[in-house]
Amino acid sequence: MKKKGFDVLVYLCLAIVFVAECSAYIVDPGPVVIATSGEIWPKPKKQQTEETFSTFTPTNFHFKATEKTCDILDLAFERYTQILVQILNNGRRNRRSQPRRRSKVRLDPLFSGNLVEFNVKLTTECEDKPYQGMDESYVLTVTNGSASLDAKSVWGVLRGLESFSQLTVYSGEGTSLRVNHTVINDEPRFSWRGLLVDTSRHFINVDVLLKILDGMAYNKLNVFHWHIVDDHSFPYESRRFPELSAQGAFTRRMVYSVNDIENVIEYARIRGIRVLAEFDTPGHTRSWGVSHPELLTECEGQYKGKLGPMNPINEEVYVFLQELFKEVTELFPDKYIHLGGDEVGFECWQSNSNITEYMKQNDIRNYEKLEEIFIQRIIDNVDQLGANSIVWQEVYVNRVSLPQKTAVHIWTGDRFRLLYSVTKDGHPALLSSCWYLDHLSTGGDWRKYYTCDPHDFSGNAEQKDLVLGGEACMWAEVVDNGNILQRIFPRVSAAAEKLWSQQSVKDIEDAARRLEEHYCRLNVRGIPAQPPNGPGFCA
Amino acid sequence: MKKKGFDVLVYLCLAIVFVAECSAYIVDPGPVVIATSGEIWPKPKKQQTEETFSTFTPTNFHFKATEKTCDILDLAFERYTQILVQILNNGRRNRRSQPRRRSKVRLDPLFSGNLVEFNVKLTTECEDKPYQGMDESYVLTVTNGSASLDAKSVWGVLRGLESFSQLTVYSGEGTSLRVNHTVINDEPRFSWRGLLVDTSRHFINVDVLLKILDGMAYNKLNVFHWHIVDDHSFPYESRRFPELSAQGAFTRRMVYSVNDIENVIEYARIRGIRVLAEFDTPGHTRSWGVSHPELLTECEGQYKGKLGPMNPINEEVYVFLQELFKEVTELFPDKYIHLGGDEVGFECWQSNSNITEYMKQNDIRNYEKLEEIFIQRIIDNVDQLGANSIVWQEVYVNRVSLPQKTAVHIWTGDRFRLLYSVTKDGHPALLSSCWYLDHLSTGGDWRKYYTCDPHDFSGNAEQKDLVLGGEACMWAEVVDNGNILQRIFPRVSAAAEKLWSQQSVKDIEDAARRLEEHYCRLNVRGIPAQPPNGPGFCA
Repeated sequence: MKKKGFDVLVYLCLAIVFVAECSAYIVDPGPVVIATSGEIWPKPKKQQTEETFSTFTPTNFHFKATEKTCDILDLAFERYTQILVQILNNGRRNRRSQPRRRSKVRLDPLFSGNLVEFNVKLTTECEDKPYQGMDESYVLTVTNGSASLDAKSVWGVLRGLESFSQLTVYSGEGTSLRVNHTVINDEPRFSWRGLLVDTSRHFINVDVLLKILDGMAYNKLNVFHWHIVDDHSFPYESRRFPELSAQGAFTRRMVYSVNDIENVIEYARIRGIRVLAEFDTPGHTRSWGVSHPELLTECEGQYKGKLGPMNPINEEVYVFLQELFKEVTELFPDKYIHLGGDEVGFECWQSNSNITEYMKQNDIRNYEKLEEIFIQRIIDNVDQLGANSIVWQEVYVNRVSLPQKTAVHIWTGDRFRLLYSVTKDGHPALLSSCWYLDHLSTGGDWRKYYTCDPHDFSGNAEQKDLVLGGEACMWAEVVDNGNILQRIFPRVSAAAEKLWSQQSVKDIEDAARRLEEHYCRLNVRGIPAQPPNGPGFCA
Repeated sequence: MKKKGFDVLVYLCLAIVFVAECSAYIVDPGPVVIATSGEIWPKPKKQQTEETFSTFTPTNFHFKATEKTCDILDLAFERYTQILVQILNNGRRNRRSQPRRRSKVRLDPLFSGNLVEFNVKLTTECEDKPYQGMDESYVLTVTNGSASLDAKSVWGVLRGLESFSQLTVYSGEGTSLRVNHTVINDEPRFSWRGLLVDTSRHFINVDVLLKILDGMAYNKLNVFHWHIVDDHSFPYESRRFPELSAQGAFTRRMVYSVNDIENVIEYARIRGIRVLAEFDTPGHTRSWGVSHPELLTECEGQYKGKLGPMNPINEEVYVFLQELFKEVTELFPDKYIHLGGDEVGFECWQSNSNITEYMKQNDIRNYEKLEEIFIQRIIDNVDQLGANSIVWQEVYVNRVSLPQKTAVHIWTGDRFRLLYSVTKDGHPALLSSCWYLDHLSTGGDWRKYYTCDPHDFSGNAEQKDLVLGGEACMWAEVVDNGNILQRIFPRVSAAAEKLWSQQSVKDIEDAARRLEEHYCRLNVRGIPAQPPNGPGFCA
């Protein structure tokens, strides 16, 4: 172990499980964490695995819907058939570089049959699109020569197929895969398991967004929170206000057309992933002002010449937003919309003499109150459009009076206290503060993410129920198309397991071994996930 | 600016140059750092640039050797022609998405001619391979319709061509490039400008190593320090001892054959990059013990069952290393070889009863002395093979008596004190401690690297002269083929400029703007460098 900071030494010592007492300079050759084989990430609720196994050949095997079916199922069958082929091809490629096995798989006393069919029993009609609170439970059974999946919803089928693909490994011989006899009874602990992707600070190409969605599906994540615009650029191409992106995007090519967005939503839909749009206001809107400076506050005094947050005393702003949000809620089918509301700097409002005058005349005593007026109008607006709103924690902390159903998104500060108080006040809560993927530290920082649980605050059962789940956040200051996938995966997997698996799943050394496998699995599937655990390799 | 740690806020505030007083929430739209256009990284020693410019079309332009020439020159002409085509293609692709320019380039009053030829005047015969202390100086002149490069050595020509390619940008029109009229008088401040790549903790494919060499050339780095083996794996395929990699590599495919290594050396050679091999002993050798456990010390007591550093009292070890180093010095043409010598844990030697007995019999009073005996024999050995040795600082700190010419590589601790004392004792010194690319922190940590200068220690001129230069280090605990290029580039560029440019080059905001351009330049050339400066884009 050479030339690294003490923190990594310590971490690697912790990771060397078999050394009773750790010496930094006495190490074993080979990978520092030995990967599991055929273990599932995130860990299912209940799983019984036998030592006996069946084999099958992808070309001589098919998924079959025995009750209900639909396009989502058909497409999933195609995708997972393709993944099985990838597992096979990767296995065969590696075998060539390894010593020849002596014994035949089918002479193994634990071998007990060949699978040719995988029966998918979906008991209710397919739902058309994923939604908050959808049923994602499934029962997966692989026994002697037979495999089946039972689910009440098409979303459960998707999750079950993912689990089946993860149980499956190369048999080591010819063109056959193997899967241990297993019964899984699974469902998520939290219904909202998201990843925020910021496409304003760097423009991320649509093909990369689709890869992110692939990776999310492999982690059973179900909300793609699209932080689509912000101060630095406005890549959303509005039909109503095309000048916003024509002037506010970094370049004319760095925009998402309606068609692009529909493609992303559709790609996500068939994977059981919701696409949640965020149009952050009144702060973080500087790029809107390139084409529409009148929407923003003209700073005066020391900030003269600058534009600040949206101008809350300009009626045009509300009209503009009403039209924009109408378009957005029509384009994005999800019931929820994220309204932002974070980090509103009051300096510019304070400096503006019209705002000062307005506040005096209307007896508005402080800027939190001014913000409240703004946010309440926006929330009322989207409410009329039939959408549920989500706001960043500042809106709540600044005591803006919020409808009970408005969800509060916690991203900084004391999460224990905030989760307690938001839910005490009856609001649904989302947690992100412990899963900031843009925060970097040396070594395997997934371990830090893995110690965070959205239920680790004091509060009664009712309060716990109000925690919808959480989201890992990929702010894009220092990621672009070339490194965003590597930065997200597999670090996001730590959050994915905390959100899906039972609270009792917290053995970090077990997780490390499974994550080592999962990292390699993602790479086999074309996601360039980075090494989570120190020295090692993917075969 | 949303949701980031305070450290990044502060950093971004610093980066917002035009805001007299920084408010985190009042920002400008667009990139946080505006890239330069046609500026050179690393900054040349002397450069005069006029506002007038010439244009040229790559297909109607050629490099021409007017005096000496050789294969290295011919190949460089091909490469740089290709790069000019890449600049053109990228420019044309972007233009399509931008508003059409009204005025013609050639109507610009600053336009003053078309280039068709680039004359390269190399005044002495080409040297065959790069070496420590080679001449890399050049004079580049682009004037009205004429461009030329003068150099005493082929290495200077390579550096000059790189500078010319960096001066060149798309004209904005048709198929023409433009270059401002410029005179550059350039040479490096330090002769040793390296990048260490660890291929033991993760195996890095040869094609990725070649990309790294490309990127090094674009930064005028000239030493590829190949930390080829270590505790975790032994990917070097020895002709004499093939079992070392057959058993000690992660897999049979994860080895570097003689052919692979020769390809890397040749690829580096024609780019003026030396390949320095490191075979670290007596510590960091655990993977050697997979096939040759007899080389290592059997630990006893609490470490029983483990193998420690090489066994210094086993004569076979020296015979083995003599044969291996003979092969290695024949394969790697560089005059220098890195012998390691770092982080030798004494616990295992202490625990071994034979070693204890041997020390008693030979009146060896401490383990530093035992290490000295080992290292001295190895140094004598490579000395007989005609090689110059380099050791990590521990060997020096532990007071091993070293030949004057042995270079000491500083990687940790107080660099000011160490540089002073190593050079005071008359040893050449290499600095790496401030350029550890595996150490991660949020945001643009190249700024931290940029504040480190190998001459910023007190010491006389003679001592300063003994500082050969330094190396950035890419230890591979958490990088693999999928993220190593992103992690190296452009962070290594900070070290590259500190090692090439004059000590007076330290304006960090100027560097930020040039680095923003350089990051995009690397991407145009196929190196997926990551964003160095926060929000922005490459057009």
